[in-house]
Amino acid sequence: MQCHNLCLLGFGNVARALVRLLRAKTPELRDRYGIDWQITGVATRRLGWLVNPRGMDSAALLAEPAGLAGTVAATNFQEWLRLARPDVVFELTSLEPRTGQPAIDHLRAALDAGAHAITANKGPVVHAYHELRDLAQARGRRFLFEATVMGGGPIFSLFRETLPATTVRRFRAIFNATSNLILLEMEAGVSFEAAVMKAQALGIAETDPSNDVDGWDSAVKVATLATVLMDVPVPLAAVQREGIRGLRPEVVRAARAAGRPFKLVCQAERVGGGVVASVRPEQVPLDDPLASVRGTDLLVHFETDTLHGLTIIEHGSGPDTTAYDVMADFISAVRTR
Amino acid sequence: MQCHNLCLLGFGNVARALVRLLRAKTPELRDRYGIDWQITGVATRRLGWLVNPRGMDSAALLAEPAGLAGTVAATNFQEWLRLARPDVVFELTSLEPRTGQPAIDHLRAALDAGAHAITANKGPVVHAYHELRDLAQARGRRFLFEATVMGGGPIFSLFRETLPATTVRRFRAIFNATSNLILLEMEAGVSFEAAVMKAQALGIAETDPSNDVDGWDSAVKVATLATVLMDVPVPLAAVQREGIRGLRPEVVRAARAAGRPFKLVCQAERVGGGVVASVRPEQVPLDDPLASVRGTDLLVHFETDTLHGLTIIEHGSGPDTTAYDVMADFISAVRTR
Repeated sequence: MQCHNLCLLGFGNVARALVRLLRAKTPELRDRYGIDWQITGVATRRLGWLVNPRGMDSAALLAEPAGLAGTVAATNFQEWLRLARPDVVFELTSLEPRTGQPAIDHLRAALDAGAHAITANKGPVVHAYHELRDLAQARGRRFLFEATVMGGGPIFSLFRETLPATTVRRFRAIFNATSNLILLEMEAGVSFEAAVMKAQALGIAETDPSNDVDGWDSAVKVATLATVLMDVPVPLAAVQREGIRGLRPEVVRAARAAGRPFKLVCQAERVGGGVVASVRPEQVPLDDPLASVRGTDLLVHFETDTLHGLTIIEHGSGPDTTAYDVMADFISAVRTR
Repeated sequence: MQCHNLCLLGFGNVARALVRLLRAKTPELRDRYGIDWQITGVATRRLGWLVNPRGMDSAALLAEPAGLAGTVAATNFQEWLRLARPDVVFELTSLEPRTGQPAIDHLRAALDAGAHAITANKGPVVHAYHELRDLAQARGRRFLFEATVMGGGPIFSLFRETLPATTVRRFRAIFNATSNLILLEMEAGVSFEAAVMKAQALGIAETDPSNDVDGWDSAVKVATLATVLMDVPVPLAAVQREGIRGLRPEVVRAARAAGRPFKLVCQAERVGGGVVASVRPEQVPLDDPLASVRGTDLLVHFETDTLHGLTIIEHGSGPDTTAYDVMADFISAVRTR
């Protein structure tokens, strides 16, 4: 049984859900995988660089991280790493879409310090996938990011572990629950503005909905997935992007009535040596699995050279399922077969 | 680069598709996984126990296995194993549902001889999963069977590799394309008998359709999946089974018209310390992913303790996708991470 030192960068919804999940799964991790863990570092802008090399009280951490008994405050990131001695660094801060920083620097330093680097943040994958992958390999560590696309549904590990010798030719997906919910509301006769407010009331949409409805969230997920699965860097700027803001409610209603509802469709396809990627509203036929996506379901359909087609649907995605992906990456990084 | 000796028990559609796939993927297997291969044994009732310890000409084998240059005929299974010296034995014969024999004896002997044991045959899993799993572990080899359920869609490897620390509580599935096709034809006004003939003309249904329409094929797949994923032996006799033969066409048509079409639904659920499993025609609502399954698509929906729901749909399943699963098992067994 090895006890792994875990360090968390960021302590928001996903990080808290991860700590709760690790606590709940502690006996199973010990019995089935021989994995034990303790949290030796937590860092946020508000709390600073908290360290306890002997392991924090995770229940107390969940209750109130500030002033946690036994913790000291490091003065900067490098000192935090040195004192917390992580075996795994979880980078769980929010996306900085233009540069992916400072998450990239943090993940690079974690790998250089001999830790596995696990992130739920798409920025480092979009901006630095190939560099961080190669660095991890050189250090004998893992750079993993299952939670970045369709938190909860295994996608990267699916191709890495279960679909060897397979080339992805094309994928189509619905990756943004908020815009899908808004389209369904508009089909039911609700205005765009009222649908946005409903999504906000449900806690799905953010105060500024432009990230969702203008297709930015979808575009960064397409770029992330295409970069990794097609092994070609796809910068965010290369994704053709059109959101749902321009769709009039009567057009959305008429499309559903005609049996070809609108969906905000993500797509990427190999063309020549490159990848053509897009996010745009499209009408899909009712017998297309994309047509049946509702609630907070997410869906991706793959066409490959070995299978005729494979569709993955995750039902009820949320912070808890995203946290599960992060834990699965942790197990994958440290388990010995 | 290690060259693996492969032996094939059975040389029907799936075995031939496997050899074609291995030939097509040879450069990728070498470059990406450091895996090379040669076929040193092929056995069928008609051909006998063919052996060539220096490796058969796989193109000539596909063209005409009988009288292949360089092969000798062993007198029995044990001699065949001894002369062919397999690193991997592929058991690709057809199902013997009552006992799973002689496939179980062959897989046991393969493991005892130090080979990995890979099968596309549900019999050994239903009748001897726990024994063969434990034997493989004791021998430091793998017992793998991805192709047995939803050939092409990764299911067993999904839970083994990508969904660690997850408990399957329940699954619902459509595992038999023939009965699904017959129901769709009946919805379109075709009689049961004419629908069976159409499925036979398409090469999907066998001459005797009872295996499909009476639910036997579905039941053995439910038993296979539940036994492995729920880790409880579920004998075929424990699966409550009702086929589609008793459904009158006008009832099937009316159900579709009412927006609740009939599907032959496979289900298994943990209850207490055991598993309750069934196959029966059920009406499903249109927004249930099961309702949209058509053609040769297959679908399974999982409820687990870590994800709210996960649906896998394989589109266009057939011997080539089943062969892919067998190859994926081979790569999984011999690859070094």
